[in-house]
Amino acid sequence: MRIAVLHPGEMGSAVAAALSPSGTVGWCSAGRSDVTRRRAQEAGLEEFTALGECTDWADAVVSVCPPAAAEALAADVSGTGFRGLYLDANAVSPATSERIGALVADAGATYVDGGIVGPAPRRAGTTRLFLAGERAGEVAAWFEDGVLDTVVLDGPVGGASALKAAYAGWTKASAALLTAVRGYARAAGVEEELLDEWDRSQPGLRDRSDASFARLLRTAWRFEGEMREIASTMDDHGLPADFHDGAAAVYRRLARVDDADDDPGRVLDRFLEP
Amino acid sequence: MRIAVLHPGEMGSAVAAALSPSGTVGWCSAGRSDVTRRRAQEAGLEEFTALGECTDWADAVVSVCPPAAAEALAADVSGTGFRGLYLDANAVSPATSERIGALVADAGATYVDGGIVGPAPRRAGTTRLFLAGERAGEVAAWFEDGVLDTVVLDGPVGGASALKAAYAGWTKASAALLTAVRGYARAAGVEEELLDEWDRSQPGLRDRSDASFARLLRTAWRFEGEMREIASTMDDHGLPADFHDGAAAVYRRLARVDDADDDPGRVLDRFLEP
Repeated sequence: MRIAVLHPGEMGSAVAAALSPSGTVGWCSAGRSDVTRRRAQEAGLEEFTALGECTDWADAVVSVCPPAAAEALAADVSGTGFRGLYLDANAVSPATSERIGALVADAGATYVDGGIVGPAPRRAGTTRLFLAGERAGEVAAWFEDGVLDTVVLDGPVGGASALKAAYAGWTKASAALLTAVRGYARAAGVEEELLDEWDRSQPGLRDRSDASFARLLRTAWRFEGEMREIASTMDDHGLPADFHDGAAAVYRRLARVDDADDDPGRVLDRFLEP
Repeated sequence: MRIAVLHPGEMGSAVAAALSPSGTVGWCSAGRSDVTRRRAQEAGLEEFTALGECTDWADAVVSVCPPAAAEALAADVSGTGFRGLYLDANAVSPATSERIGALVADAGATYVDGGIVGPAPRRAGTTRLFLAGERAGEVAAWFEDGVLDTVVLDGPVGGASALKAAYAGWTKASAALLTAVRGYARAAGVEEELLDEWDRSQPGLRDRSDASFARLLRTAWRFEGEMREIASTMDDHGLPADFHDGAAAVYRRLARVDDADDDPGRVLDRFLEP
């Protein structure tokens, strides 16, 4: 198997490493950063400098990129005439996933819908790739010898994206809510009193809130788009989109906090700046 | 001390019972239900049939009612010429609390801002009344011998309402988010797969979600207004109001589920009906 991973960012390079036992993994360096190149080299990926060369070579393409870029990447790959197997593993809504599936199928490729739950996998058991679509079982087989666990879903394309949306719809939106509420308490002058009350009646919540800042600051830049995708799929089902619109607004604010400072008070002060 | 509790609902009657060691507690039966009368009688409260008689008799009025009714109740009490101490212990925004404070002060009464965190108190340690305002310490003293703990906040009127808003802004909005997300997963056909993933990577979340339904169904009717108050105070601080607008929408839907059925699947099916 020859598999192209587009692109080997933090998650993509870990997915590529998990694929290595099953075949040769390539990537396309056009327009990518030096950080991405270093990751690709460390993972031993075969470099292509043009997308067309990469997709001509590949039997399969695995798309791992920020959600807002997923559709454009599928269009670029389709534009090269790629007719192999195309896996989108991004945090997009089921509707976006279905559009991507139609787009790559029109160009002659076969589509598999994916969704990754967990951190970039470095060891077994931390992270699962959910898969849906006719050839989902085939994709799962590529990962049999790596550290990324797979779960094949019954049902049509879109299920893996729905599962991922529901999962992140709690984890990332609840983290954003916790930030917003603690930020409110700070702005209203009752943060210490709130933390004292949490210590009495919500054990663990102070620590959960403190610990979330360092993590959120590193990843907030790509969560805004993911929250917008979830808001859109909630709305598609006639459910309130507000929670995830609010979470998108929180992550947009947190993405501005670009220093590495993870002191909760200082992060909140920056968060509260208009 | 003669203290009028308006009104002895589930929370109000427990607050009245916590006050009994410090004085005589009265209530006003005009327009109240038989359930409320039974609660008031069981708590040994002195009945007044007209609000003016009740407030003429009382040294202090404690307002415990749904947030949407708090301002009108303060206006009614002020309309009787009440000039004692007025405690609003409702889940209103700090801005609403400040308006109520101005209203009762204009009529000659003294205002204390309150916020209750926890269930209706039946035993010590479960529930705290936060208090803010010049005579907050005096109010705290009334509760010294009862099961309702008090916390006097430094700072002006509004702080107790802010503390309560921040606290419920997490607990009730996160419960609403959990309901919305699980409802989404059910609608999208991946609820079982989501619960399986929660069991793997979010231990306790399935049980938390299951357990919340019975509790939410009983109380959803009065949470919508509380969520609107919190949305408004978030907005006052330039923070996203969306989370609590979404939570208000969830509680409005849950309030329709009027049967006592707490099977999670059946509750979610009713919740998902347009």
